[in-house]
Amino acid sequence: MATRRSGRGGGDDGIETGKLRDGEKELSIEEIFEQKEVPAWTDQLTVRSMVVSLALGFLFCFIVMKLNLTTGIIPSLNVAAGLLGFFFIKVWTTVLGKFGIQSKPFTRQENTVIQTCVVASSGIAFSSGYASYILGMTEKVAKQAEEGNTANNVKELSLGWMIGFVLLVSFLGLFSIVPLRKIMILDYKLTYPSGTATAYLINSFHTPKGALIAKEQIKCLFKWFSASFLWGFFQWFYTASDDCGFTSFPTFGLEAYARKFYFDFSATYVGVGMICPYIINLSMLSGAVISWGIMWPIIETKKGLWYGADLKSSSLRGEQGYKVFVAIALILGDGLYHFIVVLSKTFYFMAKTLLKKDSVQVTEGTSSDDDIVSFDDKRRTEFFLKDQISMKFAMGGYIVLAIISIIAVPFIFTQLEWYHILCIYIFAPILAFCNSYGCGLSDWSLASTYGKLAIFAIGAWVGMDHGGVVAGLAACGIMMSIVSTASDLMQDFKTGYLTLSSPRSMFISQVFGTFMGCILSPLVFYLFFYKAFPTLGEEGSSYPAPYGLIYRGIALIGTEGTSALPENCLLISAVFFAVAIALDALKEVLVQTNSKWHKFIPSPMAMAIPFFLGGYFVIDMCVGSLIRFVYELKNKAEADLFVPAVASGMICGDSLWGLPAAVLSLLNVKPPLCMKFLSRGVNDKVDTFLSG
Amino acid sequence: MATRRSGRGGGDDGIETGKLRDGEKELSIEEIFEQKEVPAWTDQLTVRSMVVSLALGFLFCFIVMKLNLTTGIIPSLNVAAGLLGFFFIKVWTTVLGKFGIQSKPFTRQENTVIQTCVVASSGIAFSSGYASYILGMTEKVAKQAEEGNTANNVKELSLGWMIGFVLLVSFLGLFSIVPLRKIMILDYKLTYPSGTATAYLINSFHTPKGALIAKEQIKCLFKWFSASFLWGFFQWFYTASDDCGFTSFPTFGLEAYARKFYFDFSATYVGVGMICPYIINLSMLSGAVISWGIMWPIIETKKGLWYGADLKSSSLRGEQGYKVFVAIALILGDGLYHFIVVLSKTFYFMAKTLLKKDSVQVTEGTSSDDDIVSFDDKRRTEFFLKDQISMKFAMGGYIVLAIISIIAVPFIFTQLEWYHILCIYIFAPILAFCNSYGCGLSDWSLASTYGKLAIFAIGAWVGMDHGGVVAGLAACGIMMSIVSTASDLMQDFKTGYLTLSSPRSMFISQVFGTFMGCILSPLVFYLFFYKAFPTLGEEGSSYPAPYGLIYRGIALIGTEGTSALPENCLLISAVFFAVAIALDALKEVLVQTNSKWHKFIPSPMAMAIPFFLGGYFVIDMCVGSLIRFVYELKNKAEADLFVPAVASGMICGDSLWGLPAAVLSLLNVKPPLCMKFLSRGVNDKVDTFLSG
Repeated sequence: MATRRSGRGGGDDGIETGKLRDGEKELSIEEIFEQKEVPAWTDQLTVRSMVVSLALGFLFCFIVMKLNLTTGIIPSLNVAAGLLGFFFIKVWTTVLGKFGIQSKPFTRQENTVIQTCVVASSGIAFSSGYASYILGMTEKVAKQAEEGNTANNVKELSLGWMIGFVLLVSFLGLFSIVPLRKIMILDYKLTYPSGTATAYLINSFHTPKGALIAKEQIKCLFKWFSASFLWGFFQWFYTASDDCGFTSFPTFGLEAYARKFYFDFSATYVGVGMICPYIINLSMLSGAVISWGIMWPIIETKKGLWYGADLKSSSLRGEQGYKVFVAIALILGDGLYHFIVVLSKTFYFMAKTLLKKDSVQVTEGTSSDDDIVSFDDKRRTEFFLKDQISMKFAMGGYIVLAIISIIAVPFIFTQLEWYHILCIYIFAPILAFCNSYGCGLSDWSLASTYGKLAIFAIGAWVGMDHGGVVAGLAACGIMMSIVSTASDLMQDFKTGYLTLSSPRSMFISQVFGTFMGCILSPLVFYLFFYKAFPTLGEEGSSYPAPYGLIYRGIALIGTEGTSALPENCLLISAVFFAVAIALDALKEVLVQTNSKWHKFIPSPMAMAIPFFLGGYFVIDMCVGSLIRFVYELKNKAEADLFVPAVASGMICGDSLWGLPAAVLSLLNVKPPLCMKFLSRGVNDKVDTFLSG
Repeated sequence: MATRRSGRGGGDDGIETGKLRDGEKELSIEEIFEQKEVPAWTDQLTVRSMVVSLALGFLFCFIVMKLNLTTGIIPSLNVAAGLLGFFFIKVWTTVLGKFGIQSKPFTRQENTVIQTCVVASSGIAFSSGYASYILGMTEKVAKQAEEGNTANNVKELSLGWMIGFVLLVSFLGLFSIVPLRKIMILDYKLTYPSGTATAYLINSFHTPKGALIAKEQIKCLFKWFSASFLWGFFQWFYTASDDCGFTSFPTFGLEAYARKFYFDFSATYVGVGMICPYIINLSMLSGAVISWGIMWPIIETKKGLWYGADLKSSSLRGEQGYKVFVAIALILGDGLYHFIVVLSKTFYFMAKTLLKKDSVQVTEGTSSDDDIVSFDDKRRTEFFLKDQISMKFAMGGYIVLAIISIIAVPFIFTQLEWYHILCIYIFAPILAFCNSYGCGLSDWSLASTYGKLAIFAIGAWVGMDHGGVVAGLAACGIMMSIVSTASDLMQDFKTGYLTLSSPRSMFISQVFGTFMGCILSPLVFYLFFYKAFPTLGEEGSSYPAPYGLIYRGIALIGTEGTSALPENCLLISAVFFAVAIALDALKEVLVQTNSKWHKFIPSPMAMAIPFFLGGYFVIDMCVGSLIRFVYELKNKAEADLFVPAVASGMICGDSLWGLPAAVLSLLNVKPPLCMKFLSRGVNDKVDTFLSG
């Protein structure tokens, strides 16, 4: 499918910007870096980078855990990791310099390695599920649920098995996806907005002096970075509680707000929208309109007919069931289609190569783009392909780890049999591919969705009587870990691609970061949260961790099988599964027949994302698209140069604000004000209440 | 004092903008208009313009009356009048064209005449005080006050005396200020932001084709016009009641908000700030800091010592007294200083001229600027000086009207004696000058402040027993009418100056508009509001008209004389009166000694305005200044060209939104939402209340 090349756009078209005059040759990013030697992959992994990673990993683990236990929404931390990595190493070399010790020069590859390691480590803090599926196993949460508080459906937490389990399941994701990196990064040219933004930032830190355009881009990036950071800071003051502040701004009225159509003033998603291709944003918008605008309101009218009228809106037996399963159907349809197409193409070219006994790269033939390859792309591809990670190593690693896991996990969760785990490990690579692909398109990792799928599948298989709740939740953990680390890895490969970092050093850094996360996360959770706050997981406490109960709820339904789903849910899901495949096939036909209309076929994956999240972030992204569209209309060449910088700045600034915001939250400094939105009627009541 | 020439800045400096290429000569506004003949002043006054003015006058009278009776805040309507005038005449000529009737070409001078007439007419709707001093005389309001509900301190409304009174007092303002137009417009080059913005708009409507820069400016103007209009529209949705919406945004926290330091997102005042000279905005800022940041908090601590602890904050016996009187002292000090300086300079040059028997313009000599006069300025000055209104006519008119008024008014208000009115008419021209001068600097008309002064002076003089309350309120009306129409006239002269309209046609149009207003205002108020809504003037009704009671309250205190003022109020006021004169004198000394520091002496008049209004609009204006400063830093020449266009667009768009907003209000369409700002504590309470 046609995705937009991120990074520098139109090559050397002789663009004239305000301050650029004739006689100065414009250089692209990699032309500027050309004279800088790229260190061997072993030199990209330094001791100092590991030390800094460890320190940052600890900090980020805290932050992610905290956010996870309060709202469960975790911003992309790639950028903050890149920036802080740069900062710490600079401080490190400066301090050593004061003592007369000369340090090796700090390269952008080393910076990328730190970033990767920290992101991997904090990724585990999320995917290890201490705020969701693991918490859902405890008796504390079981007591709050309607049913299933039986001995074999409850598992008490202890540090030993928690560390063991996370170590057993967290490394498979890396091995599952690593062979597909060339397809995703080089052929599909997937965007990975956060990864791209991070790469821009890292490149900008290390740019040698004298490059005018790059300087202008950096200036632009930092301007928007500051603006976005300050905007985040400003917004903070007005968010004293939930439903306060700009993120709850009912831009199109309260009615639309209830249907999740509103502009939530998130600089991050406006930036993401600027980087994402138009068709992705439009696909999402159409998805939001079809689901929240048309389907859900219709389904709501069936309340009491198709599903019980007394169900909570968050119950999977009710409305939520349609949302989750229709979205999953779309994602699976699209993912499966692409997986099959990619596999068959890959095998086709592998066969051709073997027959020709030629050394042509496997991936080259699949590229249907006939772009003139720019200097940057050429150089990046060269370095990306330089240090190989052999297919044999990846597949071998995956199989060995899977076998260990299949043997060991049933000792931890006696409710799970070896064949359950085997099944997960057979399907997981497909889903890991789906998730990495979707994340590359839209920056959303849907790991938890795939996790929920595993809850259902395994929970139903095991059954309530045999401890299906704990089995389902454990399966969720296995699945989520694979799917989540896979998309993180691919995101980091994109960053590595754009900074000429070796895939090999990236992989090792990721493994190190994952290991760090596997030790830090359970420790931090158990000691600093679970034991420190006895009310953790209870409603109204400072760490309500609502996902504990939600995940347990899903598992409870899951053990009853799909029969527990609301009426027609499976039918509708099947229709959307077919629609996804049909759309993809239609696109392929149009591409093959050289029709221009293929550009207007929406991406089912992108459509699915707002199906259960709602349209608010889509509105943000469409605003980003609109800004880019107007900019391109005014000056295409300038837009190509500066849109990625503006977008990166916006994403980076907002993400970095997440750090001080989390620190404030840790220090229990609460925002002083609430910006509230009330309808006129309610407002009158409140005014009477306040004055009376 | 050095004020910035509004309008086009740096002449023909050969600025290169994005789309302007060599070989195209840039033309200034008046160079573009040069081939267009300027009609004689008699041809600027057409029948169709009078008909359109009448229609618009009626519409605007409704709007102003409505706003006056609800919040009392009335935006500048100059722009809306200019725009709608243009629209109606265009429709008029098009319709006539359909019937084959050829119309005279529509000139910008005719457009200006319509605008002037409509503004004059709607100005009367404000200065006639049906929502303030006139309403304050009624028994309905008297019943709500603490004291003074006696026969001779109450006057029931009837259409007869209302029309008679407004006709008697409304024309003197025009005659009082007309001789000073040259000093204000040509020598002092006062800004009159609204007037300038209107002129820009009118010029842009009538620009002949082919002028590239002008086209760019117009495009810029309309872009910001639309943005500002849409912003106003957007804001409206969130203002379901008082203290809702962006105008109540506690940008710097609730503490600062309570002290009126906040950014209220008003596009109008950001635009005004962009047009106003930096020193004016900085003067206002310093005024806001000195008063609301330092003085009022200190005075608050004297509660119970200097003034009664049980007084409302709006009581003139308490805090409000300091605010009003210190501000008045600053304004009077500055105004008096300038009046004396101008008078003496005028007499000096008149004497010199008479001695030389030369025909040099009286005003020429007073200009201390040594600018090279641009083509625009030359041509505008030429037309501004073409049709004279003789000093004799103006002074004669004032004296005749004053005599009629002195004889007739005591028949309407038996509480007033002829010598009271004579006194007012002696001091009024000084205050009219002060107000026009201040309005030219900052766009604020302080007519109601001068009116309050009259309440005090005359109320105290007559005394409660002899009907001092009604006497004071009537005196307020006489004073306000003069002061308000004077500043409106000067604002319109500025517009006329920038559109080459004849001062004579402007004056006649103003007289016609004033007459229209004198008939329409009492009729509209009496028939459509006073008789239509029996609850008018009562708290909680749809027309609470709070100023009725406030004005009566001031009058009640006034009758007790200055002794009713809080302790040390007179002393502090006297100090600030002296400070104002000292600052002006210091500036004059620095100018005479050619010191550069004279630019940094604040304007006392500008400082005074936030003394009782607070700093919120000052913040807006400083934001405007900041935008201009940054723009000038980036590209001075481009900024000079586009800042006035941007500013005009912002002012125009926001003002024009006032029209549909008023129509919505008339149709009782209320905004659906309230954007509320609560402290965390209060928010928790509200959340509990709403969920409970």
